[in-house]
Amino acid sequence: MTRCEAVAAIIAAKKTKNLKWKDIAEAVGASPEWVTSALLGRNSMPGDLAARAVSLLGLDKEVEKILQECPTKGALEAETAADPLIYRFHEITQVYGTTIKELIHEQFGDGIMSAIDFEMEIRRLPDPKGDRVVVTYNGKFLPYRKW
Amino acid sequence: MTRCEAVAAIIAAKKTKNLKWKDIAEAVGASPEWVTSALLGRNSMPGDLAARAVSLLGLDKEVEKILQECPTKGALEAETAADPLIYRFHEITQVYGTTIKELIHEQFGDGIMSAIDFEMEIRRLPDPKGDRVVVTYNGKFLPYRKW
Amino acid sequence: MTRCEAVAAIIAAKKTKNLKWKDIAEAVGASPEWVTSALLGRNSMPGDLAARAVSLLGLDKEVEKILQECPTKGALEAETAADPLIYRFHEITQVYGTTIKELIHEQFGDGIMSAIDFEMEIRRLPDPKGDRVVVTYNGKFLPYRKW
Amino acid sequence: MTRCEAVAAIIAAKKTKNLKWKDIAEAVGASPEWVTSALLGRNSMPGDLAARAVSLLGLDKEVEKILQECPTKGALEAETAADPLIYRFHEITQVYGTTIKELIHEQFGDGIMSAIDFEMEIRRLPDPKGDRVVVTYNGKFLPYRKW
Amino acid sequence: MTRCEAVAAIIAAKKTKNLKWKDIAEAVGASPEWVTSALLGRNSMPGDLAARAVSLLGLDKEVEKILQECPTKGALEAETAADPLIYRFHEITQVYGTTIKELIHEQFGDGIMSAIDFEMEIRRLPDPKGDRVVVTYNGKFLPYRKW
Amino acid sequence: MTRCEAVAAIIAAKKTKNLKWKDIAEAVGASPEWVTSALLGRNSMPGDLAARAVSLLGLDKEVEKILQECPTKGALEAETAADPLIYRFHEITQVYGTTIKELIHEQFGDGIMSAIDFEMEIRRLPDPKGDRVVVTYNGKFLPYRKW
Amino acid sequence: MTRCEAVAAIIAAKKTKNLKWKDIAEAVGASPEWVTSALLGRNSMPGDLAARAVSLLGLDKEVEKILQECPTKGALEAETAADPLIYRFHEITQVYGTTIKELIHEQFGDGIMSAIDFEMEIRRLPDPKGDRVVVTYNGKFLPYRKW
Amino acid sequence: MTRCEAVAAIIAAKKTKNLKWKDIAEAVGASPEWVTSALLGRNSMPGDLAARAVSLLGLDKEVEKILQECPTKGALEAETAADPLIYRFHEITQVYGTTIKELIHEQFGDGIMSAIDFEMEIRRLPDPKGDRVVVTYNGKFLPYRKW
Amino acid sequence: MTRCEAVAAIIAAKKTKNLKWKDIAEAVGASPEWVTSALLGRNSMPGDLAARAVSLLGLDKEVEKILQECPTKGALEAETAADPLIYRFHEITQVYGTTIKELIHEQFGDGIMSAIDFEMEIRRLPDPKGDRVVVTYNGKFLPYRKW
Amino acid sequence: MTRCEAVAAIIAAKKTKNLKWKDIAEAVGASPEWVTSALLGRNSMPGDLAARAVSLLGLDKEVEKILQECPTKGALEAETAADPLIYRFHEITQVYGTTIKELIHEQFGDGIMSAIDFEMEIRRLPDPKGDRVVVTYNGKFLPYRKW
Repeated sequence: MTRCEAVAAIIAAKKTKNLKWKDIAEAVGASPEWVTSALLGRNSMPGDLAARAVSLLGLDKEVEKILQECPTKGALEAETAADPLIYRFHEITQVYGTTIKELIHEQFGDGIMSAIDFEMEIRRLPDPKGDRVVVTYNGKFLPYRKW
Repeated sequence: MTRCEAVAAIIAAKKTKNLKWKDIAEAVGASPEWVTSALLGRNSMPGDLAARAVSLLGLDKEVEKILQECPTKGALEAETAADPLIYRFHEITQVYGTTIKELIHEQFGDGIMSAIDFEMEIRRLPDPKGDRVVVTYNGKFLPYRKW
Repeated sequence: MTRCEAVAAIIAAKKTKNLKWKDIAEAVGASPEWVTSALLGRNSMPGDLAARAVSLLGLDKEVEKILQECPTKGALEAETAADPLIYRFHEITQVYGTTIKELIHEQFGDGIMSAIDFEMEIRRLPDPKGDRVVVTYNGKFLPYRKW
Repeated sequence: MTRCEAVAAIIAAKKTKNLKWKDIAEAVGASPEWVTSALLGRNSMPGDLAARAVSLLGLDKEVEKILQECPTKGALEAETAADPLIYRFHEITQVYGTTIKELIHEQFGDGIMSAIDFEMEIRRLPDPKGDRVVVTYNGKFLPYRKW
Repeated sequence: MTRCEAVAAIIAAKKTKNLKWKDIAEAVGASPEWVTSALLGRNSMPGDLAARAVSLLGLDKEVEKILQECPTKGALEAETAADPLIYRFHEITQVYGTTIKELIHEQFGDGIMSAIDFEMEIRRLPDPKGDRVVVTYNGKFLPYRKW
Repeated sequence: MTRCEAVAAIIAAKKTKNLKWKDIAEAVGASPEWVTSALLGRNSMPGDLAARAVSLLGLDKEVEKILQECPTKGALEAETAADPLIYRFHEITQVYGTTIKELIHEQFGDGIMSAIDFEMEIRRLPDPKGDRVVVTYNGKFLPYRKW
Repeated sequence: MTRCEAVAAIIAAKKTKNLKWKDIAEAVGASPEWVTSALLGRNSMPGDLAARAVSLLGLDKEVEKILQECPTKGALEAETAADPLIYRFHEITQVYGTTIKELIHEQFGDGIMSAIDFEMEIRRLPDPKGDRVVVTYNGKFLPYRKW
Repeated sequence: MTRCEAVAAIIAAKKTKNLKWKDIAEAVGASPEWVTSALLGRNSMPGDLAARAVSLLGLDKEVEKILQECPTKGALEAETAADPLIYRFHEITQVYGTTIKELIHEQFGDGIMSAIDFEMEIRRLPDPKGDRVVVTYNGKFLPYRKW
Repeated sequence: MTRCEAVAAIIAAKKTKNLKWKDIAEAVGASPEWVTSALLGRNSMPGDLAARAVSLLGLDKEVEKILQECPTKGALEAETAADPLIYRFHEITQVYGTTIKELIHEQFGDGIMSAIDFEMEIRRLPDPKGDRVVVTYNGKFLPYRKW
Repeated sequence: MTRCEAVAAIIAAKKTKNLKWKDIAEAVGASPEWVTSALLGRNSMPGDLAARAVSLLGLDKEVEKILQECPTKGALEAETAADPLIYRFHEITQVYGTTIKELIHEQFGDGIMSAIDFEMEIRRLPDPKGDRVVVTYNGKFLPYRKW
């Protein structure tokens, strides 16, 4: 069984059981953002969390094992990258990337926001003119090292 | 004078006067994130704000006029896109893009987060294990239209 | 069953039953443009419309369910993008893109035409020198937000 | 003088004289869409129209001559293609391209919409929920030839 | 059956029956260039011609039906584009493209040669220093429209 | 003086003297297609022809010398490649490339049409339904060598 | 059977029978370089040579037939192009390409070395400091044609 | 003075003095292939050879110094890579790359031909059917290291 | 069996037997870095080492044979190249590539570090502020050859 | 003065004063690798180190100021990336990237080697068979965060 097949099995089980990512996250005991990323094959899970996920979804031991491995986390295939929802996030980096760089350097000095020691939250903000999506990135500042 | 030359003049004046983006934003009367993006040539400014920016920086009327025009906002040149700080934001979209898509659809239904009716905040979160960069995206949810 | 297989099943059923997209759209109760895009896997359908489409085409429940999911809407594969009919639309953007940008900014100010809160119509205009294709795009104007 | 310099001179004169594309189009005696595209260097102008444009803008004979030449009409440079306003038109082709292909073939048979024997209109449609941009493409249908 | 499989079946039948494209074209009643392009899946065939092609090749009704559909005509896959024979045609456009543009504009004014209302002939020209390939492109001139 | 500057000088002189490529070709004593390609910098000229071209255009010795050098003949820059007139020739190769390959192999065996031992003619074919552009490629057949 | 499957069968048979390319070339009666290229699917074989190759390898008639067809000879897939051994040949063209161009033009005038009327030899040159690979390209000079 | 300007000065001096690369190589005391590559900026020269080259060409000390530096040797710009003469060398790698790999491995085992400990010769081979270009690559075999 | 299937079999056996790369390397009798690269299909193995690896993993003779062949060693597929861990190594080359070039030339003169006569070591360096990854590249210096 | 011009000034001064990077590093008081990267514009310098560098090189205050700014550190331009010395480092990542990933995960668990909290050393290792280049990367291990 490949990781890809494991992810397909997870998505199929989620549909059959009419579960939401939020429900699975509660059962697993971590945030919905992290749990979803792990079940979509972009993060590795500690053994106990993998066991809970697999048990809730009614899947077998091989999936549990795969969820604990270190995945290849990178590149979205072209089709996904051009999906309008995902593309907007690339557009934000294109339009505001230099702004972000200026302001992080102004507040922290030379360094970057880690994308590894990193967490993310997605929530709904009610607004009479149309509800808003609020996405928060929270990453450790890593200063460049002199040697 | 091209917009590109106007941006260079702004950055030079900021250096000479030893100003921070935060200081300029206060004088202009809007958030540092939006003011920085406008002065870097990625957003257009209303006339009164452009006037205040130009006056603070000691620049002339032509810059003020250019700041009010609608800029071409898009593509980062290759060099900038590969800067480690900016690349991390592309990496986040590559690694977490499908997660974001799943969770926005779960919470809102079919649609996207607008990158136009959009605002962003960057702040420093003190942390004993190393301070953290917190970047918040806040965009209107736009549902797909049926017709 | 993947969305891709669902689309193939829809196209096969349409051929077998000798239906036109126009006929299917009437039965479904929405415009031919939107219905075609949804049945080709580029838009999600409300449950009742999906039910009518599937019933007309004689397909099973799984297709109905897939039609209600949020699809990955994006990138045409290279082969499709180079089809002469589709390429002409990319060419129009290449040749007239800056014209469109100038005129939308002149009439509306800084902002964009939404491709989400959007609809499209395709019709035939009789002309003695050769009939004409008329394609109308209709999208909400989204002004940039200051913050 | 290159065409590129001619376009820059036209844009500068337009700014100095505080003209709108609509005003120039009226003086020239053709639609704002076509006049704008010609003055941005994407279409060639008949001699009398070029003369009127140059006279209104107060430019010299060399610009008038350049406006009558056949321009290289094609590729947007990468920066422009990623401008959010222009990108939305590429996105529409990506998302709705196969829909457009199906419906043109259904209504006309095998062939394409010409991007040469072509015109375009951009107008503002008032709407209480937010005004809308309406862009109409009108191109001759060209059937494939058998030989 | 996909169009791709139909093309493979046509090529296999042609081999088995030891037919040349020229023979098939005669039986079908159109030029070898057009018939070959249609049987390789790049043009759609009228019903009677498709029937004759399929009957000669001993293939079934499904192939006949597919030959009448509007194909996706575009992009050569990378491997084919780099075949030395095909690459030479791209090279000719690279080396002589600007020459062709100058001379068509000189003889016809602003416009293009249609690749849709188009036909092509390939023939062998005997030459004592080595026979020559003569390829003739014949496309309607399409002038740009003013509006 | 670079070749690029020489080409610009040639084009400027041609405009000033109101010459057509056809006129220059007659004075030079070769076909308009070849002369145009050489004066646009894509072919090298024998000394006597270069002398006649430079004399007609009223340019100096340095241009004459440059016209005799072996140019870098290759790649069109992206902007030119996307010009609609030139793109149609790339499209023809994309759509008909495999057809051309099949028919050249059928008539000649394994080998290619040379793009070096090659000539090209462009002419206007009157047609009541709209005049036609006829472009003829004529290249030596080069069989693959066995060794 | 596709050409790709035929090549796989040839390689498998070569392994099973413990043959070297040199042995096969001798049996076929042509150079190892040409025979290898033909058996790897990059050149077509005359009937008698294909028969000998197939007989030596113990393969069937279908392979023999495929070896006589005109292959698509072009593009290496990305993985192969980045193989260090093959990449070095691309690097040589990158580093020495302009040198080769200068020296061929100096010795022959304007024209190219044919890659079609071409042969190649690979041999081992003993050297006390480490044996050397000697690769010889031998192609007909093709002068550009004036017309 | 940049290396690029130094190369331009060398080429200009070579033209003015009517020298051939062969003549310069003789004066410098190394092969024409290596000397040409060094003077085109792709190899560094020992001091005495640089001095002789500069003296013959009548250039100044700064050029001499630049010729001794280690150049950036790599990528051809797109225009050069598509020149037909240079492209044929890329095509040979595309068509014969896998053949070369098989035969080097057969004769030497696992390893590559060095492109650094490398030399090259270009010569003219008279042939009644048309003279031939013979290019010889000679590089040290480098076996892969086990550790 | 393809090399790709052999690698999959090796990875599956390693999982089933709960072996570490380090354990396999010890049994094989070479460094973990080299053994891992060979078992992942990037290096060829001498016969005795391949035999030990296959025996430890309980795989059959065909795998043993494949491990001794010369693999295509090159390009990472896009997905792998964008994995954050692997991308960091590309980033280091992007950021420090010119530094490395300067310092190797300063210490050694014109030439390169071989990636063929090359070995690599990966180890863990304990550090109270967080353990560190230490990767050492060790390649023979290859000076450029004059000829 | 741009950073690019500052780097050019630094390189020119280094040449004029016949300094080595090693000498400059000693005067500055940090490692040659880090100092070189900072002076080539890839790292920012603390004020005192910048002062010492500028004083040694005899450059003015503006360079000193630029050296303290946060640079855009990323993408090598295409020409540099194809330089053989630099390309070998990309090749190592292509060939050994998956090996490095496996072994870092085996020794540390899921995470990456930081390219920010990172240092590098380059040294010469004498070897009778040819001296060797030893490059050591030393980066903090960053484990993925669960949240």
